[in-house]
Amino acid sequence: MSGPGPTGAEATRFSRRVPRARIHPPVDVFPIHAWKLETTRFTGHFVPQVETLYALGNGYLGLRGDFEEGAPRAQPGVFLNGFYESWPIVYGESAYGFARTGQTIVNVTDGKVIKLYVDDEPFEIANANILEWHRTLDLRAGTLDRTILFETPAGKRISLTTRRMVSITHRHLALLSYEVSVLNATAHFTVASELFTRHGEAEGSDDDPRRSSGFDGRVLEPVCQRAEGSRAVLVHRTRNSGLALACGMDHEVSTGAPFTERAECGENRAEVVFSIDAGPEQPFHLTKYLAYHFSGEATEEELTARAERTLRRNREIGEQRLFEEQRERLDDFWEHSDVEIRGDPAIQQSVRFNLFQVFQATARAEGFGVPAKGLTGQGYEGHYFWDAEIYVLPYLIYTAPRVAKNLLQFRCRMLDQARERARELGHRGALFPWRTISGEEASAYYAAGTAQYHIDADIVYALRKYVQASGDARFLCESGAELIVETARLWLDLGFFSEHKDGAFCINGVTGPDEYTAVVDNNRYTNMMARENLLGAVATVETLRNRYPDDLRNLVRKTGFEASELEQWRRAAECMHLPVDEKTGIHPQDDDFLEKEVWDCSAIPPEKFPLLLHYHPLVLYRHQVIKQADVVMAMFLVGHEFSAEEKKRNFDYYDPLTTRDSSLSSCIQSIVASEIGYPEKAFDYFLDAALVDLADIGGNVTDGVHIASAGGTWLALVYGFGGMRDHEREISFHPRLPADWEGLRFRLEIRGQRMEVDMDREGTSYRLLEGSGLLLRHEDEECRLLPDAPARFQATSS
Amino acid sequence: MSGPGPTGAEATRFSRRVPRARIHPPVDVFPIHAWKLETTRFTGHFVPQVETLYALGNGYLGLRGDFEEGAPRAQPGVFLNGFYESWPIVYGESAYGFARTGQTIVNVTDGKVIKLYVDDEPFEIANANILEWHRTLDLRAGTLDRTILFETPAGKRISLTTRRMVSITHRHLALLSYEVSVLNATAHFTVASELFTRHGEAEGSDDDPRRSSGFDGRVLEPVCQRAEGSRAVLVHRTRNSGLALACGMDHEVSTGAPFTERAECGENRAEVVFSIDAGPEQPFHLTKYLAYHFSGEATEEELTARAERTLRRNREIGEQRLFEEQRERLDDFWEHSDVEIRGDPAIQQSVRFNLFQVFQATARAEGFGVPAKGLTGQGYEGHYFWDAEIYVLPYLIYTAPRVAKNLLQFRCRMLDQARERARELGHRGALFPWRTISGEEASAYYAAGTAQYHIDADIVYALRKYVQASGDARFLCESGAELIVETARLWLDLGFFSEHKDGAFCINGVTGPDEYTAVVDNNRYTNMMARENLLGAVATVETLRNRYPDDLRNLVRKTGFEASELEQWRRAAECMHLPVDEKTGIHPQDDDFLEKEVWDCSAIPPEKFPLLLHYHPLVLYRHQVIKQADVVMAMFLVGHEFSAEEKKRNFDYYDPLTTRDSSLSSCIQSIVASEIGYPEKAFDYFLDAALVDLADIGGNVTDGVHIASAGGTWLALVYGFGGMRDHEREISFHPRLPADWEGLRFRLEIRGQRMEVDMDREGTSYRLLEGSGLLLRHEDEECRLLPDAPARFQATSS
Repeated sequence: MSGPGPTGAEATRFSRRVPRARIHPPVDVFPIHAWKLETTRFTGHFVPQVETLYALGNGYLGLRGDFEEGAPRAQPGVFLNGFYESWPIVYGESAYGFARTGQTIVNVTDGKVIKLYVDDEPFEIANANILEWHRTLDLRAGTLDRTILFETPAGKRISLTTRRMVSITHRHLALLSYEVSVLNATAHFTVASELFTRHGEAEGSDDDPRRSSGFDGRVLEPVCQRAEGSRAVLVHRTRNSGLALACGMDHEVSTGAPFTERAECGENRAEVVFSIDAGPEQPFHLTKYLAYHFSGEATEEELTARAERTLRRNREIGEQRLFEEQRERLDDFWEHSDVEIRGDPAIQQSVRFNLFQVFQATARAEGFGVPAKGLTGQGYEGHYFWDAEIYVLPYLIYTAPRVAKNLLQFRCRMLDQARERARELGHRGALFPWRTISGEEASAYYAAGTAQYHIDADIVYALRKYVQASGDARFLCESGAELIVETARLWLDLGFFSEHKDGAFCINGVTGPDEYTAVVDNNRYTNMMARENLLGAVATVETLRNRYPDDLRNLVRKTGFEASELEQWRRAAECMHLPVDEKTGIHPQDDDFLEKEVWDCSAIPPEKFPLLLHYHPLVLYRHQVIKQADVVMAMFLVGHEFSAEEKKRNFDYYDPLTTRDSSLSSCIQSIVASEIGYPEKAFDYFLDAALVDLADIGGNVTDGVHIASAGGTWLALVYGFGGMRDHEREISFHPRLPADWEGLRFRLEIRGQRMEVDMDREGTSYRLLEGSGLLLRHEDEECRLLPDAPARFQATSS
Repeated sequence: MSGPGPTGAEATRFSRRVPRARIHPPVDVFPIHAWKLETTRFTGHFVPQVETLYALGNGYLGLRGDFEEGAPRAQPGVFLNGFYESWPIVYGESAYGFARTGQTIVNVTDGKVIKLYVDDEPFEIANANILEWHRTLDLRAGTLDRTILFETPAGKRISLTTRRMVSITHRHLALLSYEVSVLNATAHFTVASELFTRHGEAEGSDDDPRRSSGFDGRVLEPVCQRAEGSRAVLVHRTRNSGLALACGMDHEVSTGAPFTERAECGENRAEVVFSIDAGPEQPFHLTKYLAYHFSGEATEEELTARAERTLRRNREIGEQRLFEEQRERLDDFWEHSDVEIRGDPAIQQSVRFNLFQVFQATARAEGFGVPAKGLTGQGYEGHYFWDAEIYVLPYLIYTAPRVAKNLLQFRCRMLDQARERARELGHRGALFPWRTISGEEASAYYAAGTAQYHIDADIVYALRKYVQASGDARFLCESGAELIVETARLWLDLGFFSEHKDGAFCINGVTGPDEYTAVVDNNRYTNMMARENLLGAVATVETLRNRYPDDLRNLVRKTGFEASELEQWRRAAECMHLPVDEKTGIHPQDDDFLEKEVWDCSAIPPEKFPLLLHYHPLVLYRHQVIKQADVVMAMFLVGHEFSAEEKKRNFDYYDPLTTRDSSLSSCIQSIVASEIGYPEKAFDYFLDAALVDLADIGGNVTDGVHIASAGGTWLALVYGFGGMRDHEREISFHPRLPADWEGLRFRLEIRGQRMEVDMDREGTSYRLLEGSGLLLRHEDEECRLLPDAPARFQATSS
């Protein structure tokens, strides 16, 4: 039943709107469904993509969607957030201050494996005679379900039902439910449930220098093993980073058929084998509990005990209740975070898939960051970039503020390392790493790494946005203020008041978000965000001074803050160099951008994209070509600093120069296009963002989902089509419903209250779900939203 | 007799002029001598430096100055120009077009080793009771000589005399003369002469990432061996680059004492051991012939035969005659190339040492380039940079035009690879590698490597200078024109006519010679040199068109040249963007240089130099701080494009920003300082250039001599103090004798004629040595120099 490509009807599902050339296959293997991603046949050609799309996770633990049977497989994997191996970065030509320690997320012990033998013949998906097949990612249940009916060469019909989840409630737990029965005969089943520590298999091919320069695959050293009955725990330790991991499994059987059970445990493999003599109507049902614990400090005994505790406790709760809890947790998530799209079920499905992915990447991260691919793959080595702060947090802040806070606390805990890094580079204050797991800078290419100083301001932006939206002043006082002060110091030290520019505060030698331009002077985005950072530091200190004097004293103690700094920050912010180009009236991306040679992107053959794979960085840097539009990004994040005309002029200039080479770009282009009145362009970009994984627009979904773009999809919906802004302590909306849609509904949590926005073709309704009252602005009208008193505004034009 | 430091009198030899902090020890171990570098005691502390300073070479073969006894040693070595191992460059983060193939010169089979045992006790320099010690690099004989008198614990006085040379006449030959005798007793001598293939010992320590990323030391695989009598040949092949090397030795004995001889030959070691019963007045004299041949194509049999032929032929010539030939060859060299300094014997010695080093690095390079350290060490991996074209050729062109031509032909032979590299980077024309041995780009840090496009123009500059000075039109027609055309094409493709700059031709995204600034727009040096390149192409084609139409047809055939290109090159040259800063009246180093933050270099603590070892590149790039002054360099190379006022203004601006972190800087600063009337500064910089090795000013002479600075020393003497210029087809002089000197004399070869310039305190004399007559200009006076009619000009002011 496997087939090479989509059938005719499905093929046109998205391609009528996204150019066919940008769509890759997997999108068409999933029929439209509001809450599910289902395959109804085995699609062998899409195994690599589906492993990513069917991945499960909770922000701490992630299982790729490879099969219980272990094959066919592309990059099977299990990942733990923050569990990495380090390795020395070697440079052909090195220099002072280059990042020294590479870090790569480790593909850990795999507990997904349950192999089936029928009358001693292995069940092999690729070769079996499959009569029925349903495999479903259930977005409401938070499970990956599968029912298969197949016939053996002897004519025995076997029914196999599996269900898998990574628990949201129980952070260290994954659960597999496995039921097999023979329908029309008797049969002997062997069911072998494994823990299996892979070595190197999925670390990437040799010609990927990011891997081959690191470790050679074998990074997990077996430390100890413990097996008892149907329970086993394997403990391993990484060679360099010194992290220890305990992975345990336990089993529960429910069957009317006679069976025996036998366990074996080696250093890298533990196995519990069930041997069943089943008749018809005698299903064999197995529940497999999987526990993962890791630590840099705990002993192996302690970790083993933790894993065993998790197993024991969850066996007591039991399979059924655990799945119920998951569903309840998901219900709560959707209640807060869903975006309902009426009149476009295909996009509705994609959007919910994206929101679900963000949830899976963040819900229980607690103490860790958000890897670029979540825990769905090893792409970007599992590093944390600015994605969380700029693409994910603006969503979480308004739907799951507790999760947002956890992610910000993770950055606050990195502050000492950021201080250290700043000192190493000769700066005052703190400089956060561009990419990292451990907190140390791991970028081996500083021009598009360390030079992206803007990460400091990005973190502060998200932090202040959280405080503003949530009203969580305690977090600001206890953790945030220190980080804000140290980053402001960095900017003051990094820039200078330039005589050559009439005393303007200039920040030279930095790289903005656009990585097709590097190490420039006065990157507009960086300067504007640095100004926000500096002014934010002033505002923070003044808030503490006026309202939390004890916290100010603590801040002084922790940072040595002196009152004279306020004036310096204020002056640097006021004098920040933010020029307008006289000829075009636009804001130059940096001092030299407009001097670069123009490159007619439309003349570049399609096969040369993404450009970074076909042109030397010097060629890219030399031209007016953009991976991700910096200035447009600033127009979103600090949009109140631009006039409507400026926004339009800038967008008109930069948009044609912007390739679709970065998945971070589309959602932001969409938001600004919405705002300035380019609805078609806005929708086109929105599709790119929303479909990046499901339609595999980048052609690399195999390496993991694009979490930033997934978060950006929500931004495009709410900030773009909803026109939501929250710049000035008053939330406002400028609804612009896409032409083909009937309605769009989403919910927001603001300053402890909850509201719903519901747009349709005739107008927009606002409803307070929780809280005592909220001031909002619809277009130019102010409105006080009160409990049980929805507000309705008619659309002014069609 | 070894001592830790210099004695009082010697210590002040240079330090009265060069600040003590910049001088390192070895300078003081050599007494002043016009033609020798002699040590009169064993100086164990300086072994690493002396290994470099006593290195011998002929441009093809180089022996470091380690002892025959094999110890004490620092980095013993034998190098062959162009004999390298390659390795894949691994990047932590890679990108399209990055250099892929690292190349490192290989420390090859060592034939210097001759060990001595007296009554079975090894002679160990570090432990012996040495009564007399003379070790001398003889700059006129071209030999390293040593006489030692030592006493054994048994009271036997042993005299040991060794002499070593790398033959200039016989390119593949090194010769060791070895004589030992007992003065006051009888003794049993064992003399063991070896060939010995080291593996990895001298490849550098593990924490030098340039080596550890490359090969692990063991690069020479034994291929075959042949031994017969006192002759042995070892053949090895490199693992990756596939070059085969045959190293052979043969011996001749002359003694009245009875002796036996025994040979052994393994894969990595061959040994001929002489066993002698010597009485007083019965010296044992050994001549060791060493032959080195390598090839990428020849079979091992062929290479073995070549080595044996070299040995046989030179045995026939014999030791005495070989040393005589060497002396004759050196006499000829000094006749053409010497610079005589009267009144400053210490500097005279340093200058001759520098000239000798350039001779050793270039004389028989034939088919290869000039490594940055010559063949005296493994520094910079034995790579060829622009050093030859800009620092060495301007000297060779006027003293050894045949050698200059060989080096240029080597570049011409690289043209196809340069074409390929240009295509890889998306350019038309040809782009030469910034650093290479094989012809492939080997720079693993493109910002200070590939981005130095100026190398194209540097090569063309030297090439045209050679043709102009020598009048060698055949070389231009047959090899040069093609290279000039292809490089002109590169510039036209790289730059563009910028609307933003009123149609000026702009070259963006390049790095100039100053490596404390990288990837900039309109680097002044690059733009001026590119203009020279473009105009040179126009002039070349016109010359061919007018005078060598057959060669033009060949050129068209080889390059597809079209007449329309002439106008394009001319227009790009005419429109070249070369702005003047309005405020300061200077020529900005690049579009942004003056916008950078000023860094008060005088406030940087001395231990932070060189800055590159203590600051991240981003910090350096962000400031107005210079490793090597670009604009000053342009004022030397294309000085006729600047007015006297411009030169002064530029120098006054840039000189205070220029650190002494590059050994390439001082000679050029000296020349321009001379020209604009800063004699003290000129002399100060000259000392830095002249003493960089002998006073180990950079602290790294151990890694090899600084060939560019050695060549630059001549430039500072002739172009600086002599004020020689050859811009406009008429050679001119503006003598400016340093205040403390009595006289300065040098010889030049120009357009097939030879002349001598002799400056003293009262005036300058010009004399034609060969030729029919030469037009020259002294200050503002024209003068036709005729045979037997010297011209004398009185100094205009003291």
